[in-house]
Amino acid sequence: MAVYTEIGDDELRDFVAQYDIGAVTGLKGIAEGVENTNYLLQTDRGSYILTIYEKRVDPKDLPFFLGLLDHLSTRGVPCPSTIHGRDGKALRQIAGKPAAVQTFLQGIWPKRPTAVHCGEVGAALARMHLAGRDYPNTRPNALSIDGWAVLVDATAARADHVAAGLGAEIAREFEYLSEHWPADLPVGVIHADLFPDNVFFMDDKLTGLIDFYFACTDALAYDLAICLNAWCFERSTEFNITKARRLLSAYRQVRPVGDDELAALPLLARGSALRFLLTRLYDWLNQVDGAMVKPKDPMEYLHKMRFHRRIDGPGAYGLE
Amino acid sequence: MAVYTEIGDDELRDFVAQYDIGAVTGLKGIAEGVENTNYLLQTDRGSYILTIYEKRVDPKDLPFFLGLLDHLSTRGVPCPSTIHGRDGKALRQIAGKPAAVQTFLQGIWPKRPTAVHCGEVGAALARMHLAGRDYPNTRPNALSIDGWAVLVDATAARADHVAAGLGAEIAREFEYLSEHWPADLPVGVIHADLFPDNVFFMDDKLTGLIDFYFACTDALAYDLAICLNAWCFERSTEFNITKARRLLSAYRQVRPVGDDELAALPLLARGSALRFLLTRLYDWLNQVDGAMVKPKDPMEYLHKMRFHRRIDGPGAYGLE
Repeated sequence: MAVYTEIGDDELRDFVAQYDIGAVTGLKGIAEGVENTNYLLQTDRGSYILTIYEKRVDPKDLPFFLGLLDHLSTRGVPCPSTIHGRDGKALRQIAGKPAAVQTFLQGIWPKRPTAVHCGEVGAALARMHLAGRDYPNTRPNALSIDGWAVLVDATAARADHVAAGLGAEIAREFEYLSEHWPADLPVGVIHADLFPDNVFFMDDKLTGLIDFYFACTDALAYDLAICLNAWCFERSTEFNITKARRLLSAYRQVRPVGDDELAALPLLARGSALRFLLTRLYDWLNQVDGAMVKPKDPMEYLHKMRFHRRIDGPGAYGLE
Repeated sequence: MAVYTEIGDDELRDFVAQYDIGAVTGLKGIAEGVENTNYLLQTDRGSYILTIYEKRVDPKDLPFFLGLLDHLSTRGVPCPSTIHGRDGKALRQIAGKPAAVQTFLQGIWPKRPTAVHCGEVGAALARMHLAGRDYPNTRPNALSIDGWAVLVDATAARADHVAAGLGAEIAREFEYLSEHWPADLPVGVIHADLFPDNVFFMDDKLTGLIDFYFACTDALAYDLAICLNAWCFERSTEFNITKARRLLSAYRQVRPVGDDELAALPLLARGSALRFLLTRLYDWLNQVDGAMVKPKDPMEYLHKMRFHRRIDGPGAYGLE
């Protein structure tokens, strides 16, 4: 929860004047969000989200992200679309940083996702994957094998400060996944971070997908594996097979999943668990004094990784 | 900037159902605000602020604060009014904590207040003081002399960690103010925390006063002294006499200020500076690991206190 960048009065006026969105009536920093600064920008025409991209986002990637939002939203995916300025541009600067204005989506993210939510997410993910097929731009997944290697090295020396034996377990898992990571699965644009706080609902109907700033070109089934981890475990880290069945079957009703993808799911889920274990562990070990964001518990993803390692096949996910 | 309390999905539904404000379409944590958790609550009828009162607010004081908002807003003061539930009550509980829903005010707080803003604030403060005259409830100022004594004791041992000699300077100032604090000035409801981030503007016109959670019964001129400190110094801690003149003269056009009040202003301003120096110093010395709010610099108020001690009378404020 963070507002990293404050906006001066004149600066805001000059910035908004470059758009055809009316006169500003309000600006409130939004507490949710870790990577960027988000403001709810209200004008006499409606509500918008003003995002200021902070150092964790590479400005070179912004055209990929913003272009993707427009691509998906024109194809009916319930994601924000960017507001283009009078000069036609969606990306400009405020307070010396890259910034963009997007449409505001109604809905609330679910604090306790239910099986109904999981079904909605599965279907929306599949529709996003289909809508992304003809997106012409690509972006490598910076948090796949190569990125993990960097994080394994960066956390190795102190991983055992968090839990005894953690460093060795991560090293073993990384080695195994590097050797067995599937290379021939269907690839496309994936969200890569579709956690519950990035999905809005109203009355149990999905109304929005947000926060595409990890989106990249990778195996579609890997996105599904990320969602299995993010949506189908209870707080006690127990796997909920009912939720997984709903998520997977709703996905498959929209986009048929190949046998190769299904067979790879447990491995992809281990990889997804390792990815979030590593980034959380890194943030945990590198906490900044006075930081405004509490790091998330890395151990949650260690438990998930172990779960997927123990099962004997994708049938454990309740596949029908 | 903080959201201390998360709200469950069912909990939100049950809470909102107790009001006649329509169906929820959005809920976003607001980054601004230090004491309480504030959500922007959107329904199909409009926007509201849902405030959850955290431990720094004494629940016994809430009827005073919420009643004051209704009292002032029905008298035309541009402050939030409370939304009463179907049971007639404005105060209820959510997530086990006291909570209230208030109207949403348009406008933006000024990051760099101008002399025009200072004039608007002076006039609005005076109107608030007049409107509060017949508010039947009272609340002692917990952060006047008695409260300062507690903070002087609590910070004495470590004040010099922040600046050499600070402890002795605070002790001397506290002793002087205790002996000379005026007792016979006109008293009424004061805001007691009217900093720029608690005042909204649109197009240089004041649209809202918020955050009445330090409001209390005290000398009206003390509120003016707080505003002099909060609005009339440049970032370099230089006093801006033009801003002070605008603030004071705009105030006096709405509510005549007695000679006794004017004469007391420098002393009241010293007291106000000591009050914010002490609370900031206390927070500075008692930083919590992992806190989501950065403590404010106490030294800013030391400089302000010294300024008011040096001047030879209220003429230094540009009084006309």
